[in-house]
Amino acid sequence: MRKVDPERQQAKRRQIIEAAADCFARRGFHATTTAEICAAAGMSPGNLFHYFASKNAIIEAIAEEEWRDTAAYFAAIDRDTPDPLEAVLSFLDVVMVFAADRSYSRLALEVAAETLRNPVVGTSVAAGDAAMRDGLAALLRQAAARGQIDPDLDPAQCAKWIAVLIDGVFSRLALDTGFDPVHEAPMLRRVVSRFLAKPGRGA
Amino acid sequence: MRKVDPERQQAKRRQIIEAAADCFARRGFHATTTAEICAAAGMSPGNLFHYFASKNAIIEAIAEEEWRDTAAYFAAIDRDTPDPLEAVLSFLDVVMVFAADRSYSRLALEVAAETLRNPVVGTSVAAGDAAMRDGLAALLRQAAARGQIDPDLDPAQCAKWIAVLIDGVFSRLALDTGFDPVHEAPMLRRVVSRFLAKPGRGA
Repeated sequence: MRKVDPERQQAKRRQIIEAAADCFARRGFHATTTAEICAAAGMSPGNLFHYFASKNAIIEAIAEEEWRDTAAYFAAIDRDTPDPLEAVLSFLDVVMVFAADRSYSRLALEVAAETLRNPVVGTSVAAGDAAMRDGLAALLRQAAARGQIDPDLDPAQCAKWIAVLIDGVFSRLALDTGFDPVHEAPMLRRVVSRFLAKPGRGA
Repeated sequence: MRKVDPERQQAKRRQIIEAAADCFARRGFHATTTAEICAAAGMSPGNLFHYFASKNAIIEAIAEEEWRDTAAYFAAIDRDTPDPLEAVLSFLDVVMVFAADRSYSRLALEVAAETLRNPVVGTSVAAGDAAMRDGLAALLRQAAARGQIDPDLDPAQCAKWIAVLIDGVFSRLALDTGFDPVHEAPMLRRVVSRFLAKPGRGA
């Protein structure tokens, strides 16, 4: 009997996820065949199916990883940061760096489309969205306490509308080829800063 | 030879478009068969194909109609309105009324998805988007001239970011079942008002 090497298992899964993510971004989830994923990952179908039972299982793993990355990002932010508003705005910069990565943004749209069809993907996307909104709301609460933003705003509602803006950026990328995230990143900062600012304070 | 009655032709096309729009919203564009559209419209396939050569031609007509409606909406706004800012905010209220119509918002997502596959749909969506952004930019220019908003903001760029917010609302509807456009409409007004406000002025 072969011994299972967990590290090797993880490396193999990673190799498949990366090859599949690349295929999904280039050709779309539905147009991609498992044969293409095997070719891209350099493995046989039997080998691939040992790690993932189906193409659906791969996109489910991608969505779960995305959720865990988001949760880890917010968990890593210092709870006592002296500049919580800047932590919110820096997160928006990070989002725009990801948005500018065409492969990432196309994959994000494929994952978003699958939420309508695949409840496992839907659950991970919802969990990632909740982690992001909770993380942003916590930072906004601290920013209000430190007098950085308008204390009359509801942190959870502001976090929701920041999420609307982020969703909108990814939609715009699909609809408007002239939308350049690198160029637009300072404007996203400006939109959010002005929205959050205390009346009577410039931004 | 039968005489062609243009009004009757138009009425028939309308009947098909409405039946198809309903099917696309309920089942998705790709899952809908022409047989289902025929059944919903109460006509034979031969009759349907007399008006539209394919299912693609129907969604192209839907996208074109949407573009023309948007252009007509902005063309109808009085150029000398004393309150151009309110005209912008009222448009956002209208968007949220449409967003709250589940059948409309699902159809909008189907049309958006088709822009990636069907260049005719893509052209109409881009034209509708341009009409909206141009209309908003013109109103924002007037609002700046009347001292209603910060004159340091670039009207075209603000219009683009209002478009990002609108895109984001429709994405959120697909991803977040707890997002209620009727409930959120005042917040969209607030986000945009605060973003546009002159520094030093509350909103």
